[in-house]
Amino acid sequence: MGKRVAVVLAGCGVFDGSEIHEASAALVHLSRGGAEVKIFAPNIEQRDVVNHLKGSPTDEKRNVLVESARLARGNIQDLAELKVSEFDAVIFPGGFGVAKNLCSWAVDGKNCTVNEHVNSTLQAFHKAKKPIGLCCISPVLAAKVFPGCEVTVGQDKNVDGRFPDAETASAIAELGCKHICKDVSESHVDEANKIVTTCAFMCKAPLHQIFDGIGTMVEEVLKLA
Amino acid sequence: MGKRVAVVLAGCGVFDGSEIHEASAALVHLSRGGAEVKIFAPNIEQRDVVNHLKGSPTDEKRNVLVESARLARGNIQDLAELKVSEFDAVIFPGGFGVAKNLCSWAVDGKNCTVNEHVNSTLQAFHKAKKPIGLCCISPVLAAKVFPGCEVTVGQDKNVDGRFPDAETASAIAELGCKHICKDVSESHVDEANKIVTTCAFMCKAPLHQIFDGIGTMVEEVLKLA
Repeated sequence: MGKRVAVVLAGCGVFDGSEIHEASAALVHLSRGGAEVKIFAPNIEQRDVVNHLKGSPTDEKRNVLVESARLARGNIQDLAELKVSEFDAVIFPGGFGVAKNLCSWAVDGKNCTVNEHVNSTLQAFHKAKKPIGLCCISPVLAAKVFPGCEVTVGQDKNVDGRFPDAETASAIAELGCKHICKDVSESHVDEANKIVTTCAFMCKAPLHQIFDGIGTMVEEVLKLA
Repeated sequence: MGKRVAVVLAGCGVFDGSEIHEASAALVHLSRGGAEVKIFAPNIEQRDVVNHLKGSPTDEKRNVLVESARLARGNIQDLAELKVSEFDAVIFPGGFGVAKNLCSWAVDGKNCTVNEHVNSTLQAFHKAKKPIGLCCISPVLAAKVFPGCEVTVGQDKNVDGRFPDAETASAIAELGCKHICKDVSESHVDEANKIVTTCAFMCKAPLHQIFDGIGTMVEEVLKLA
């Protein structure tokens, strides 16, 4: 029997939804690991819709669940319907949508609020001692919901210009969590909390390195599950 | 020096654009192969916008270039600007968007018309003896533009229920092309025309097998480039 893994999306596109290549990489590695995957997203309006060609917001309205369905090839459910008892682990790919739609980090930083269904999902997996995998900016969800936990979003300094968002590590520390510096090819495992994180596109790296880094995260999650 | 490869997208989402996982897989394999990639899409309105949760068309209007920019993380150009002299190869991922936006196969089958910039791009790479990689439904572009060429879209019968769109192979044969039966893990190389094809999501297979099949296509394209 493969491990049963829920993947939670935040839309479809790096600037207003889930980072597409991170979500796809997680799904490829889960497939290779023999996991049985179900995909979820909150049924809410996106905080904004960004024209990804221009990089600027538009007047459009889009729904997080409907746009996430593009990544899921239609096979997706409302996050409100997720039953933790039916899964062995949960994974949150990154992208600005996590910081805009799953919580308000993009606007409020460490004072952010977390979507109620995202919060209850995280709490329930944690309480059941089931692993939680996060990449890119998603580790801020764990940092906000589980004070004291250990996560990585890469480096806490902009090493070689590869970590332009290094100040995220400081914000995580200010939440009372421990930021662990890791490179793009690595994951950090918080054994006590069963939280596995990797920096993915928080590092400016070639796509295959990001793909492989997410592979280590998925592998650790499946081991803990 | 890495090979210079153009990737041509058709939107963002399997039902009205590029198949997301196919596009991402191609980009991961190109990255691993050390290729220098630039991404293009035609600057045209999508034929339709499909709600991927419900599987039904909506009243929305979206632009192929703007939506493709989601897959390209903003780093994309109008296909009309592609200069063949600046590239060693071109790759077309699949998805219904290829059959809706890059040509009219979804509506007209083998009597389809091909977008003028897609047609001129294909003709120019072919004339320059530079390889063309295609997956999923994209091989119909080659079949339409290069009568007599060899391509695969998987099997010509619905073997084990894994090839529900097997009749596409017959339509390709009716265009005067040779359809070569291949499994999801394989590519076919038409050496004379330097056309490399793999069936990807034309086969019902686990995502990592589709990923690996696209890997063989990219590898053959880079070898020929």
